Amino acid sequence: MSVVQMVKIVGLGAVALTLSVEWLGWLFCRLWPRKISRGPLKEVFFFPTKVACTERLFTPNSPFPCPCPLPHNINTSFTRLLVHILSASSSLDLCVFAFTNLDLSRAVLALHTRGIPIRILTDMDYTLITGSQIGAIRRAGICVRCDSGAVHMHHKFAVVDGRRLITGSLNWTLTAIQSNKENILVTEEPDLVLPFISEFQRLWDVNDPARRHLLSIAEKPASLVL
Amino acid sequence: MSVVQMVKIVGLGAVALTLSVEWLGWLFCRLWPRKISRGPLKEVFFFPTKVACTERLFTPNSPFPCPCPLPHNINTSFTRLLVHILSASSSLDLCVFAFTNLDLSRAVLALHTRGIPIRILTDMDYTLITGSQIGAIRRAGICVRCDSGAVHMHHKFAVVDGRRLITGSLNWTLTAIQSNKENILVTEEPDLVLPFISEFQRLWDVNDPARRHLLSIAEKPASLVL
Repeated sequence: MSVVQMVKIVGLGAVALTLSVEWLGWLFCRLWPRKISRGPLKEVFFFPTKVACTERLFTPNSPFPCPCPLPHNINTSFTRLLVHILSASSSLDLCVFAFTNLDLSRAVLALHTRGIPIRILTDMDYTLITGSQIGAIRRAGICVRCDSGAVHMHHKFAVVDGRRLITGSLNWTLTAIQSNKENILVTEEPDLVLPFISEFQRLWDVNDPARRHLLSIAEKPASLVL
Repeated sequence: MSVVQMVKIVGLGAVALTLSVEWLGWLFCRLWPRKISRGPLKEVFFFPTKVACTERLFTPNSPFPCPCPLPHNINTSFTRLLVHILSASSSLDLCVFAFTNLDLSRAVLALHTRGIPIRILTDMDYTLITGSQIGAIRRAGICVRCDSGAVHMHHKFAVVDGRRLITGSLNWTLTAIQSNKENILVTEEPDLVLPFISEFQRLWDVNDPARRHLLSIAEKPASLVL
């Protein structure tokens, strides 16, 4: 067989392979549209959610069944949110207006116990509300910075492992989860995640207490500084 | 030229074309990663935003320059939000907790004047706050339904033309836009948009006043109904 013939055969083989793959892909998408992964993770949950036991998420290897009276082993919007938070393996950056929910606080503390770096940015005024978990989280040694401006740090988003964005209308409070009409959107779409990562870092730097201290010194009249 | 030769030439041509398109696509993505559209629309804006004149968005064909002292012809997070709202050509479904912003109210009224069907779902308690635009919107003839539950209808999302989702932490208020730290995410990704469309329809149906009236009759003791 000459070289020219071999090139032709390989060429035709490549065409056949390309067309087959394209056609099979099209066929799979038509037959099982929901089973074919369409790009990065995208999920939406709505609240209020049914109240269910979340113990299995925190102690998956426990040999004892949970004795609490709540329904067990059911998926709700809230258990899905907890699963996303607990999936963190390298970092959790959280930027949240109000944080009073005990299960979410337990999830953050569990990640901290596993040695996962956590940064929390919150609104100063809302650290003082009844049931705020920020004090307990700080006492556990997690780094928290507060936005103390005259207006609200009204974000409600988290970035898990620098690639998974959790955002929406939901504050991390019991009322928001069990009572209000709320939404959460989870995505790993880089065009949506990267701006939130940049904004978190900007707000984190702006609210660095050391920087604020230096700025307050710079703003004092020269006579006072000298 | 025999048929076999022609098939071979066409085959090789197809291979060359396929490889060229693939390679050119790869090259463009490497050279101009931000210019190549990666699937459906995806945008993120953060607030607070600079205050700028929005007049040109409402009267783009006006021959007179706006005399107001605000900066003109600059893009801000807020002008981008307005552009997305004003882009509606077939429908606007809005589900918002608090609505006091005059520019956003003007945008909704402008769409209504253009004959675009608008549905607004809001929280009953927050229609009573100072500066609420819901009264003016209702008086203009736009269909508004209120969630009058004991808890908050805390969503802040809109669906434009049944395909563009605008969601985030931002209520439609002046404080949220000019003062608070807030976010807005805009996407046409079907996996993210469709759940919001379904949830809007569900809440719209639940808050139908006729349905509520029938339910209230059904709940009355039989003796009273008779």
